Amino acid sequence: MTTADHGRQLHLNAFLMNTGHHEASWRLPESDPYAHVELDHYVHLARIAERGTFDSLFLADGPQLWGNIAQRPAGALEPLTLLTALATATRDIGLIATASTSYNSPYNLARKFASLDIISGGRAGWNIVTTAGAEAARNFGLDAEPAHAERYARAGEFLDVALKLWDSWEDDAIVGDKASGVWGDDAKVHPPRHRGTYFSVEGALNVPRSPQGYPLLVQAGSSEDGKTFAARYAEAVFTAQQTLADAQAFYADLKSRTRQAGRDPEHIKVLPGIVPVIGSTQAEARAHEQVLEEHIVHTHGVQRLEQLLQLEPGTLELDARLPADLPPESAIEGARSRYTLVVELARRERLTVRQLIGRLGGGRGHLTFAGTPEQVADAIESWFTQGAADGFNIMPAVLPSGLDAFVDHVVPLLRARGLLRTEYGPRTTLRERYGLPRPANQYVTAPAPVLV
Amino acid sequence: MTTADHGRQLHLNAFLMNTGHHEASWRLPESDPYAHVELDHYVHLARIAERGTFDSLFLADGPQLWGNIAQRPAGALEPLTLLTALATATRDIGLIATASTSYNSPYNLARKFASLDIISGGRAGWNIVTTAGAEAARNFGLDAEPAHAERYARAGEFLDVALKLWDSWEDDAIVGDKASGVWGDDAKVHPPRHRGTYFSVEGALNVPRSPQGYPLLVQAGSSEDGKTFAARYAEAVFTAQQTLADAQAFYADLKSRTRQAGRDPEHIKVLPGIVPVIGSTQAEARAHEQVLEEHIVHTHGVQRLEQLLQLEPGTLELDARLPADLPPESAIEGARSRYTLVVELARRERLTVRQLIGRLGGGRGHLTFAGTPEQVADAIESWFTQGAADGFNIMPAVLPSGLDAFVDHVVPLLRARGLLRTEYGPRTTLRERYGLPRPANQYVTAPAPVLV
Ligand SMILES: Cc1cc2nc3c(=O)[nH]c(=O)nc-3n(C[C@H](O)[C@H](O)[C@H](O)COP(=O)(O)O)c2cc1C
Ligand SMILES: Cc1cc2nc3c(=O)[nH]c(=O)nc-3n(C[C@H](O)[C@H](O)[C@H](O)COP(=O)(O)O)c2cc1C
Repeated sequence: MTTADHGRQLHLNAFLMNTGHHEASWRLPESDPYAHVELDHYVHLARIAERGTFDSLFLADGPQLWGNIAQRPAGALEPLTLLTALATATRDIGLIATASTSYNSPYNLARKFASLDIISGGRAGWNIVTTAGAEAARNFGLDAEPAHAERYARAGEFLDVALKLWDSWEDDAIVGDKASGVWGDDAKVHPPRHRGTYFSVEGALNVPRSPQGYPLLVQAGSSEDGKTFAARYAEAVFTAQQTLADAQAFYADLKSRTRQAGRDPEHIKVLPGIVPVIGSTQAEARAHEQVLEEHIVHTHGVQRLEQLLQLEPGTLELDARLPADLPPESAIEGARSRYTLVVELARRERLTVRQLIGRLGGGRGHLTFAGTPEQVADAIESWFTQGAADGFNIMPAVLPSGLDAFVDHVVPLLRARGLLRTEYGPRTTLRERYGLPRPANQYVTAPAPVLV
Repeated sequence: MTTADHGRQLHLNAFLMNTGHHEASWRLPESDPYAHVELDHYVHLARIAERGTFDSLFLADGPQLWGNIAQRPAGALEPLTLLTALATATRDIGLIATASTSYNSPYNLARKFASLDIISGGRAGWNIVTTAGAEAARNFGLDAEPAHAERYARAGEFLDVALKLWDSWEDDAIVGDKASGVWGDDAKVHPPRHRGTYFSVEGALNVPRSPQGYPLLVQAGSSEDGKTFAARYAEAVFTAQQTLADAQAFYADLKSRTRQAGRDPEHIKVLPGIVPVIGSTQAEARAHEQVLEEHIVHTHGVQRLEQLLQLEPGTLELDARLPADLPPESAIEGARSRYTLVVELARRERLTVRQLIGRLGGGRGHLTFAGTPEQVADAIESWFTQGAADGFNIMPAVLPSGLDAFVDHVVPLLRARGLLRTEYGPRTTLRERYGLPRPANQYVTAPAPVLV
């Protein structure tokens, strides 16, 4: 049974991160503290996700070393590099790498994604980020983070250039005529000759057009600028939502913005994140969660929270609430929507700093859901059928065990309910898994329809 | 028998390019005109090279589409991406990728090489190039190629920054103490805090130190600036040499410059390129060569030669010699030493433009040698034992068949003469294959010697 046999089905993405999304996961007896820089760990995870017929797997990234390496596993293999190695170890699953529009050149990045798309047989995806934070900026010759609006302006131009580069070879530009000695048709190569505000890029890409034309375009910004960008370019959107109502509002907003941008709202898939903590009973699931919380080092959490909220070190007290006079979202140049989500969560549930850190420890603002496989499947189904999601970003608290548990116990329920494919079927592209059309080449005029 | 059992042994590097180094190779019946963008082609080649116990394989690169795609296979998979895929398909062979210091950021590039080094178990190498030509410059926001001297100045600073980044984690920075919740030792992380002419890079790399410390540093510039750079940084040098005398002079010069730079001349390995065309008799080898020459399209060769020599289109005539009034090497901002090599070859052998194109068609200036396996082995041995080479860059005219022929027929002779390892032995790093020491970390003070 493949997607085609069913009505609407879930799209599942496995968000792979170190020994799991819970910040204390590395301290569990089962965890390998070196896992995040070992290929075998990721090969193992990718194969579990393929067993669960996920659409894709995903690696987050930022070009900086975060904070203090004492606190938890730091650093990561560069995602495009790691995904290329995983491409050869898997067959069907999509491979989504994060890369920054602020700290890359379009020519180099477009080429790397085209290469990964070719090597993986059309399974490449790009999580487009603008990269918050001064740490990253200072690794690339800047003194401070570029303003939020400027990062998105650059991102827009970056995409326009990258799309020109990916279209710079028509699909049939290679002729390969040995007899005449003509290898390619030069008329089917279209140098961008782009001169813009942030970039000047003259020549065509030095890679032929890839199986998907270009990688699946994924995005996760939730600010105004972020959503405008998504409506224009994104084919899948990752988002952190804490309540069904918030998720429904976000979903409706994004679909309507996409329609307004002149695109089919079916062509943007919205995937909220969920951190499932699974037990055979609800009590067992809660106990798992408890063990993880007990391993949190709260002083570290305070430091990170002060950074996110742009507060002086030492402002927050563990057993008090957040200060009342926090700045408005518009004053935040970093990760804007994350800021608002955290502040609203703390206020809505009247959490102390200690409690807030406990809530964020699991999924950094994503919905954490502890329960039985049935309860997890119910939660997924209810968001999916009530206009809150086209699928989910699955973010296990502990890896690999949490992904194993999801695939062994939740996936069969979703399949039995007809919500998830039972097998991949023939090899195909990532974009087709997500039910999206292959993009046309902007330089090719569609042939006139044949009249019969 | 591994290297240790012998005296001095050859280092062999397989320079893999499309369907072969001869520009007309793609037109042979055996060749696949899409091969250069197919992973399987390269996996196949890498496995042949491993069968031949080569030290390494190598991919050339430039971030631009060269000339007209009508002429011959154009474009290429991005080398770091392709080599990462090959890392998972091989076990022992070193993996050398070309990347440009002019069109990359040190932070991104250092990270990619560290990731490949981890994923390949210490088999990464970097062919450091400054990238000649305005085409590349115009893909990265510049109007013209930066001057030769400036490219090398930037390359030097690039290396200094990259070396700081690769050393920014001490080898034992990861503690992984689950009980106390301390993952890493922050005192063993050293942010570069670099502020220079071309780069400002503040923070530590976000990848721990890799198996080799950093990739094997390879270089191929033969100009004054190029050789000065090599003497300072390179551990292996690729070079194009047409005669034994020239190769000996280059070898002696580079070793002496390396000594003057305060390094051990044994720690820089010189590898001239050779394009072997093998036949069971010399006549058969010549016939192979003839077939290839007949497939050259001379009008294409004229265009490329005019570009290299910085002449107006239409200046050269096929059956005349090169003009007498060519500019001196110092007037060339592009690939300086290639320019001189080509001009000297034409003058020394009094070649017409047509003949020169025939000579360059095979190896673009590298030594082409057509003969029996014994003759090829003799040529290799004679350069190796007469102070002209520490090994060779093997550049088959046709791929895969030319690499197969070399491994099946020349490699056994080299092994029988004790010049080449007969098996890899235990897994080890690329640097150890080349007989080079693992680099110390610049931030670690060597422990005081223990007195007994
Ligand atoms: C599931 C998810 C994954 C994300 N991954 C990354 C990432 O890998 N790198 C990054 O810089 N930002 C990442 N983000 C952050 C967003 O890209 C975006 O920067 C953030 O939401 C702030 O953008 P905004 O200011 O438009 O809200 C992620 C967000 C979500 C929800
Ligand atoms: C075997 C070999 C391989 C080379 N590969 C590359 C390459 O991949 N990319 C590149 O830009 N230059 C390449 N070069 C050119 C050199 O890096 C260098 O740019 C050229 O020799 C001109 O440098 P020079 O001006 O210092 O002589 C190669 C040269 C040789 C001999």
